[in-house]
Amino acid sequence: MSNDAADLSSFNRHMGFEVEDLEDGHSQLALGEGHDLRNELGIVHGGVAMALLDSAMGRTAVRSLEPGSTAATVQFSVQFLAPAEGRLIATARVVRGGRSVCFMEGECRRADGTLVARAHGTWVVRRPGA
Amino acid sequence: MSNDAADLSSFNRHMGFEVEDLEDGHSQLALGEGHDLRNELGIVHGGVAMALLDSAMGRTAVRSLEPGSTAATVQFSVQFLAPAEGRLIATARVVRGGRSVCFMEGECRRADGTLVARAHGTWVVRRPGA
Amino acid sequence: MSNDAADLSSFNRHMGFEVEDLEDGHSQLALGEGHDLRNELGIVHGGVAMALLDSAMGRTAVRSLEPGSTAATVQFSVQFLAPAEGRLIATARVVRGGRSVCFMEGECRRADGTLVARAHGTWVVRRPGA
Amino acid sequence: MSNDAADLSSFNRHMGFEVEDLEDGHSQLALGEGHDLRNELGIVHGGVAMALLDSAMGRTAVRSLEPGSTAATVQFSVQFLAPAEGRLIATARVVRGGRSVCFMEGECRRADGTLVARAHGTWVVRRPGA
Repeated sequence: MSNDAADLSSFNRHMGFEVEDLEDGHSQLALGEGHDLRNELGIVHGGVAMALLDSAMGRTAVRSLEPGSTAATVQFSVQFLAPAEGRLIATARVVRGGRSVCFMEGECRRADGTLVARAHGTWVVRRPGA
Repeated sequence: MSNDAADLSSFNRHMGFEVEDLEDGHSQLALGEGHDLRNELGIVHGGVAMALLDSAMGRTAVRSLEPGSTAATVQFSVQFLAPAEGRLIATARVVRGGRSVCFMEGECRRADGTLVARAHGTWVVRRPGA
Repeated sequence: MSNDAADLSSFNRHMGFEVEDLEDGHSQLALGEGHDLRNELGIVHGGVAMALLDSAMGRTAVRSLEPGSTAATVQFSVQFLAPAEGRLIATARVVRGGRSVCFMEGECRRADGTLVARAHGTWVVRRPGA
Repeated sequence: MSNDAADLSSFNRHMGFEVEDLEDGHSQLALGEGHDLRNELGIVHGGVAMALLDSAMGRTAVRSLEPGSTAATVQFSVQFLAPAEGRLIATARVVRGGRSVCFMEGECRRADGTLVARAHGTWVVRRPGA
């Protein structure tokens, strides 16, 4: 995975997220074990999985578009299935792309494959010159 | 707002979130201006508003329960209405509490009141001894 | 409320939904008591509240647009708070309109005001000639 | 598919939904072509796909539980990907079951396989005697 800080957005760098752009067009984001991002109950904060998922889904969405296009999240919905512990990896895929709307889904898993959270979200596409 | 690090969870401290427990039972979370938590497009990352909302909604949920109970997020859904810029404040309210499920909603606004994101979510209650 | 069948879409007519376009631009949909639209457990089917909400939100969305524009639902998220019994009324409001995306919310209540379900959803706008 | 009216809930019968309980524990619901359940814009109403999905997901959820248990939808979130036309089939699967919460997902497709809508939802389990 890329740990080159120059490749990372300020958010991903602040969170300690590693970004990997796969050759098949998907991007995945990971957070190494050893993080201490817990809520008041001592459980890894739900915001960690949500941020990993949003990053992976958004980056995969933008990579699927024609060059120069960008995309903005309009809606994001997530289910939390198991506690987030240790190394976390979020993957994403385009459910259906389009000229104006991009439908995405993502999964966040522990290193042992346990499904931590699942999300779907909608991105609005902004094409160059539009 | 409380900036006493001892009061803050490790996640809220890492994010720079300020926590305020209002006397009416609600909690609100804020992130001061000057943050630099941007995505690859230079926009404040959607994960920031989601984490503020999840924190405010979860903390308000737990404060509404009988002492000793805890609650875990099972589902969270958010709409993104405007870019997050400058100081951000997330507020929450209990839509309907219950013995086993707590329905919450939240709003994240800029300092000038602009609505940045709205969320609803569901928390499952764990009572002491149950 | 309008019960003029000529005013009703084939879906609303099939469901027995009554449509009322309020002067303030909002639309509300109702289902009179006496319906028998239950699931296998004998409870009014969740699809009833969802359909009322989607109808009220979509109709209110379209009425908020410039003449000739239409809108299509891209995403809909709902929480179920209490069983649907007797007369049901769904109301809607525009959270934020826009040239390309319309953010909506809605509530479905019993005749006594009990909140049955709450929803938010996103509509993509199609303008005339676009 | 079972068209035996005695097997159908009053909602499924009213909607013209056919129910099939597969041997692998999943249930699927279908609506035959020839339906006329359109909204004001002449498009098949979003409530049709939502109701098919909710029916398939809820029935599959209940079939996954120990005998005597029931389940109630607490939250449902859906993306609309393509217009619903002709025969529609909704399938469902358990993402993660549990003693108290059941996480479900579902898909609604046209006869030619085109994906019309995708949903995830959360059911709260009520066990016998609890």
